[in-house]
Amino acid sequence: MTEVTGARIGLLGRGTVGGAFHELVTERAGAVAAAVGRRPEIAGVLRRGEGDFDEILATSDLIVELIGGTDPACAYVLAALRAGKPVVTANKQLIAQHGDELFAAAREGGVQLRFEAAVAGAVPVIRTVQEGLGAIQIERISGIVNGTTNFILSEMTASGASYADVLARAQELGYAEADPSDDVNGADAAAKMAILARLAFHTPVALDDVSYEGITEIRPDDIAYARDLGLSLKLLGVAERHGGAISVRVFPCFLYRGHPLAPVEGPFNAVTVEAPAITEITISGPGAGGTETASAVLGDVVSILGGEAPPHSVEERLEVLSDLESSFYLHLEVADRPRVLAAIADVLGRAEISVKSVVQRGSGTDARLVMVTHRAREADFYAALEEISDLDFLRAPPRAIRVVEEEYR
Amino acid sequence: MTEVTGARIGLLGRGTVGGAFHELVTERAGAVAAAVGRRPEIAGVLRRGEGDFDEILATSDLIVELIGGTDPACAYVLAALRAGKPVVTANKQLIAQHGDELFAAAREGGVQLRFEAAVAGAVPVIRTVQEGLGAIQIERISGIVNGTTNFILSEMTASGASYADVLARAQELGYAEADPSDDVNGADAAAKMAILARLAFHTPVALDDVSYEGITEIRPDDIAYARDLGLSLKLLGVAERHGGAISVRVFPCFLYRGHPLAPVEGPFNAVTVEAPAITEITISGPGAGGTETASAVLGDVVSILGGEAPPHSVEERLEVLSDLESSFYLHLEVADRPRVLAAIADVLGRAEISVKSVVQRGSGTDARLVMVTHRAREADFYAALEEISDLDFLRAPPRAIRVVEEEYR
Repeated sequence: MTEVTGARIGLLGRGTVGGAFHELVTERAGAVAAAVGRRPEIAGVLRRGEGDFDEILATSDLIVELIGGTDPACAYVLAALRAGKPVVTANKQLIAQHGDELFAAAREGGVQLRFEAAVAGAVPVIRTVQEGLGAIQIERISGIVNGTTNFILSEMTASGASYADVLARAQELGYAEADPSDDVNGADAAAKMAILARLAFHTPVALDDVSYEGITEIRPDDIAYARDLGLSLKLLGVAERHGGAISVRVFPCFLYRGHPLAPVEGPFNAVTVEAPAITEITISGPGAGGTETASAVLGDVVSILGGEAPPHSVEERLEVLSDLESSFYLHLEVADRPRVLAAIADVLGRAEISVKSVVQRGSGTDARLVMVTHRAREADFYAALEEISDLDFLRAPPRAIRVVEEEYR
Repeated sequence: MTEVTGARIGLLGRGTVGGAFHELVTERAGAVAAAVGRRPEIAGVLRRGEGDFDEILATSDLIVELIGGTDPACAYVLAALRAGKPVVTANKQLIAQHGDELFAAAREGGVQLRFEAAVAGAVPVIRTVQEGLGAIQIERISGIVNGTTNFILSEMTASGASYADVLARAQELGYAEADPSDDVNGADAAAKMAILARLAFHTPVALDDVSYEGITEIRPDDIAYARDLGLSLKLLGVAERHGGAISVRVFPCFLYRGHPLAPVEGPFNAVTVEAPAITEITISGPGAGGTETASAVLGDVVSILGGEAPPHSVEERLEVLSDLESSFYLHLEVADRPRVLAAIADVLGRAEISVKSVVQRGSGTDARLVMVTHRAREADFYAALEEISDLDFLRAPPRAIRVVEEEYR
């Protein structure tokens, strides 16, 4: 890893994902070089009416296909693989419709074809099914693999609004396309499930093998009645092994509360893989936005550039901090008399710790204050806690537990 | 992939995990051979007082270390790597305490060192952090990486029982060891977070860099009060980037309901990775049981045997079924008059579909029956549905949605 060589990427397509990938690869080229000893650079870009495929292919070490659709993407990818150039693509229709031909071409060319971004964006489900769990017998894959429909169903559940109203809102927010047909009728999820079934069961799966239904007929009162029964509605893809046969389907369905996919809300994707040896594993994350998809594509590029070893580089020794901020839950068993709260508030106030909520529980010899603070320097909080433990009205040592605030998402 | 060669594995250690791995590799040898063209076989086993390491090393293509602890495991793994033999290990203490030396030896020997099973068993978090997300800038990793403590906290939450009582129960069930110190005081989680931080931030992280607290002081009333605030208690590992520095810590803390790790219950592990490019990805699954750990080890073995390409093999073309069983939710808008339910029950009964629950909602011109059936052949159900739609008291076409039953776990 001492000598860094260049890795020339031919980029086919430069729409939203292509642009995000171009930016990301430029930004992370140094980190990739440090990790795998090869610095990726964009050697050429093919976009509508600009660039020449043969020229780009000839001058590239690998091809990244982000055109979408199957024509001309399929011809380009086949040509690249047969020419012995590895290919990374985010194109689900390409893999779902032409998988057999493409995998054969990759074997023929002796190069890799990678497509993590084709299913669930940056959620590493392809890698998990194909590599991490590649050696065990998978029995079932269940997935929420279309973010548009999951957003619509979550909103219908939360608001009670109709499918049509929520769809219009999803379109405004950019979670649904102007023509949402392929998302809402289940066809998009079907293509993704065809890919997952192929990898999980090591068998060819054609798009026609996947039966699918969409969510256009779902009514708010179905959701409301089912919620009373503890059920939540999802558009689910299910690929199952049945002895020596399989099934691959997409349909709206109700999940019991304990199902690992039941808590997945909004434009998220999630996949559960079941096998006797591992019980079940669930992976979830945002669906296929531009940067998410670009990240998955770059991950595939790095796997190709890194060859057989996973990238592991030590870039520099970073300082390890311990003086951090946190919110705290604080539980104080106190004497039930006046001015107790004032005395505690005074200690916290002097330490510049502000209180988010406080409740008194019990009374008499069981009186206690339960508080949650806003974020504060931990050192300040613990100093204040020490001061509080010396207050004469405390009946037991104070108890403090960190709280992770809702800064997520 | 036409010619299959053997791959000789030297197995160090044959306790629970070693035994499960030996069994799994024997069972899956054919599938591995089909996928990567190399058939794994156990060339030799080193166990307490049996077998000679040098002899095993000399006759093996790769070494699987499942002894645990650092002595003599570390010396064996270093010797193997320096001799140019790839190593797979499930040993978190080994990687956490001797990472620098081991990675250097792997580089020196020009071979892979893989350790998916060292953190969170079969949950593919190492692979995800190191490979799938290896090229992007990770900002934070939060993890429930100790199944024993998560089981104890879940049980305390569900039952209101004390820490000591639940610990005793966990020991009975085999979820906690006779001496549970390293689990309950946070040390086990700290070692795992040291490994994750090293990989995520590309920096050496020593075990001493990780501050940790355990769960032994947690009281049931803390959990009860916090639950009223919508908080759930977890033992969390958190590794964060702060500009040019990092922090790595393990502590009990309350999570808001919306946190991706809040729904993780029982002896499960889960890890959330956050980065601007991907928002967040969460991976969850059972902790480190014997077969789960063995599966992760085999996944690493296959990655090494497969070389640079992910395994993709077509074993055979499997038949795709469509005649399956399912439970159904059935929503019928009916006239509010006697014998309606009897007529519907008659149709379902003749089709051998049994009803799990039925409620009548509304009355008069808004009367409706909402039913959930037990599992039935879908073809039978749809035939019955057609018959039902012809009944003269139906005010609208019947609505049916599949229900996924609680067969999980």
